[in-house]
Amino acid sequence: MFDDILANVREKTPLVHCITNYVTVNDVANSLIACGASPIMADDEKDAVDITSLCDALVINIGTLNERTIAAMLKTGKRANELSHPVVLDPVGAGASAMRTNTTFKLLEEVSFSVIRGNISEIKSIYRGSGTTKGVDADAKDAITGENLDGTISLARELSSRTGAVIAITGAVDIVSDANKTYIIHNGHEMMSKVSGTGCMLTAIIAAYCAANPGNHTAAAAAAVCVMGLSGEMAYEKAIKNDSGPSSYRTYLIDAISKTDADILKGGMKIEIR
Amino acid sequence: MFDDILANVREKTPLVHCITNYVTVNDVANSLIACGASPIMADDEKDAVDITSLCDALVINIGTLNERTIAAMLKTGKRANELSHPVVLDPVGAGASAMRTNTTFKLLEEVSFSVIRGNISEIKSIYRGSGTTKGVDADAKDAITGENLDGTISLARELSSRTGAVIAITGAVDIVSDANKTYIIHNGHEMMSKVSGTGCMLTAIIAAYCAANPGNHTAAAAAAVCVMGLSGEMAYEKAIKNDSGPSSYRTYLIDAISKTDADILKGGMKIEIR
Amino acid sequence: MFDDILANVREKTPLVHCITNYVTVNDVANSLIACGASPIMADDEKDAVDITSLCDALVINIGTLNERTIAAMLKTGKRANELSHPVVLDPVGAGASAMRTNTTFKLLEEVSFSVIRGNISEIKSIYRGSGTTKGVDADAKDAITGENLDGTISLARELSSRTGAVIAITGAVDIVSDANKTYIIHNGHEMMSKVSGTGCMLTAIIAAYCAANPGNHTAAAAAAVCVMGLSGEMAYEKAIKNDSGPSSYRTYLIDAISKTDADILKGGMKIEIR
Repeated sequence: MFDDILANVREKTPLVHCITNYVTVNDVANSLIACGASPIMADDEKDAVDITSLCDALVINIGTLNERTIAAMLKTGKRANELSHPVVLDPVGAGASAMRTNTTFKLLEEVSFSVIRGNISEIKSIYRGSGTTKGVDADAKDAITGENLDGTISLARELSSRTGAVIAITGAVDIVSDANKTYIIHNGHEMMSKVSGTGCMLTAIIAAYCAANPGNHTAAAAAAVCVMGLSGEMAYEKAIKNDSGPSSYRTYLIDAISKTDADILKGGMKIEIR
Repeated sequence: MFDDILANVREKTPLVHCITNYVTVNDVANSLIACGASPIMADDEKDAVDITSLCDALVINIGTLNERTIAAMLKTGKRANELSHPVVLDPVGAGASAMRTNTTFKLLEEVSFSVIRGNISEIKSIYRGSGTTKGVDADAKDAITGENLDGTISLARELSSRTGAVIAITGAVDIVSDANKTYIIHNGHEMMSKVSGTGCMLTAIIAAYCAANPGNHTAAAAAAVCVMGLSGEMAYEKAIKNDSGPSSYRTYLIDAISKTDADILKGGMKIEIR
Repeated sequence: MFDDILANVREKTPLVHCITNYVTVNDVANSLIACGASPIMADDEKDAVDITSLCDALVINIGTLNERTIAAMLKTGKRANELSHPVVLDPVGAGASAMRTNTTFKLLEEVSFSVIRGNISEIKSIYRGSGTTKGVDADAKDAITGENLDGTISLARELSSRTGAVIAITGAVDIVSDANKTYIIHNGHEMMSKVSGTGCMLTAIIAAYCAANPGNHTAAAAAAVCVMGLSGEMAYEKAIKNDSGPSSYRTYLIDAISKTDADILKGGMKIEIR
């Protein structure tokens, strides 16, 4: 289903500009290279506007934000919009602090996003216009289950409709949705939650996939989510074989991203379309 | 001895807010997850005060400090004090620059710390009110030996008495002391000194242990030091088996932190109480 | 040829102050330790000037620069010059934005560098006084080939003559040159380009090598480039044996740096002197 999408990334090597938190930035850089893209980071307003002009996509990840980088996010986001680059938002901790929540809303007002990727608590904070996010992890009570799946899909579709962005909600079950079409993805492994930054990495990979597949952001984002989930499963097999813990697992995860191709994806993806 | 302490961390999954240097921040995040806690980083004054309110503990690590983050450290430290969260100080390079030394003293004046963890040179800088720290590593001439152990214990107890904080001095031999009781810990491996950030990781783990064990910070800090040291020994065994260098060793260290439980600790800890 | 150079680093354990980007800073710290040096990072003007006074060398890497860190780079660079410390420049993305290009030129005006290390596009941007750098990677059309090798050597020599710095241009073929003598190095492996930050790591290692070998910066830089390239080859062998991807490869690379000694270098280096 996603053969061309993966091939396009490897063929075009999109250059992805990331304004992202300093906690997981190295993993973001290396997972972009692993998926076939090329990273560049710049977070000063003056530098970032120039840099984004050379790039094919922009990631705005609000973790470890500050006044200086918020200004860069806004200005660079607008510039990327002018250039019709896909812009992907990762609202890390939206709902957890006034600064993060307000920055998210300001970004949504002033920048047009192609994709918004977050955990269910972050996405619900955006949907509701307020939040009860517990730190940067999703609240257990927000978890997507068989029972609330339909409601979550409706929420994603309505938010997509309101923002114009594809909504990617990731967790034990992943949902990627525009206003009309929803991918439900069952790949991934719980060990991914034992590594800091798997969400940040995925956000950047989504940006790379969108840059290389301009006509089809919903499918591109869904493919990226599948690749990440399947890589998480492959990494788990290697971790078990080597009796490893979460730090080895992180290494194997990025290794696996570099190896996942259309054939592996075809053989392993667990996806449903509604 | 420390069975409940470890179990409490895994059961409560304390959320630990870290204002920490950008050099080792990713290892800090992943070692917190490995030990059973959950990390969140925020270093802007406005964001950090909100974030710390959601958390169970605060780490203030002064490596790569700047005016903006110093303001956040002070304000967030006070807020954490109001909330009775344990606050742990890592005075990286105290004694090595006026800015680091002065920030350390200002923090000690305005914030009440549960634990201060540093190498012997950093702790001596605080004790003396001045320093001869060589960069971020301890001076060889400051090393704890059989000969100066008693003196170092006295120093730790007096500093604990003055600051109200548990003092953790780590090196080849580790000392964890309040004003009356001292744990002397002989776990660890010299290969830990070949990895940047083992001290920063330990500081954060101590914060997690204190958050989950509110009545008993001295024992909680000592348990964290034992877990780290024993993890360092386990990582060394794996590194030798795989003919590995320091970067693999770092990975194995975080892996080992995730595996160390009360049974492993009981079997391996080398601890003396005075 | 380089026996003493390597031995001097391990014997003297130079303390290397890095003002460097937050993307690859952890790998820079750990690769410095691996090569036998000791890292310290400080990027605030007030802190950095004090810190550099304790150190043996300074790295200025302009990736993720901002107004605050640019001020620190300039002031700290001048202080390191006063102290006759080797100062090494990594002009990451020079030519890619006005801010990076202008900062590079301002640094070259106000600070005297011992070595400038960059990819061919960055070095050409400096040479020409303008640039067409594509992000932080070299443009394919700039690649050093058999046909343009002589021209590139001339360029390096002229730039060395103009700046007084040893010029290190790294890529598939590496050139290290002063105004009169050029080392051409054929070590390394293309997998190094699949890891973010191998250039940043090398820049820091060059600084350590220069600090430990004050009379001979050109040979010191060439030795560092050989060690990095050979480590890249050794890491590749391990990666192939373990069926690994780029993240494992990064780990093996830093492991290999820690193991590379004069004997390994003698057996594996592919170097030509003109």
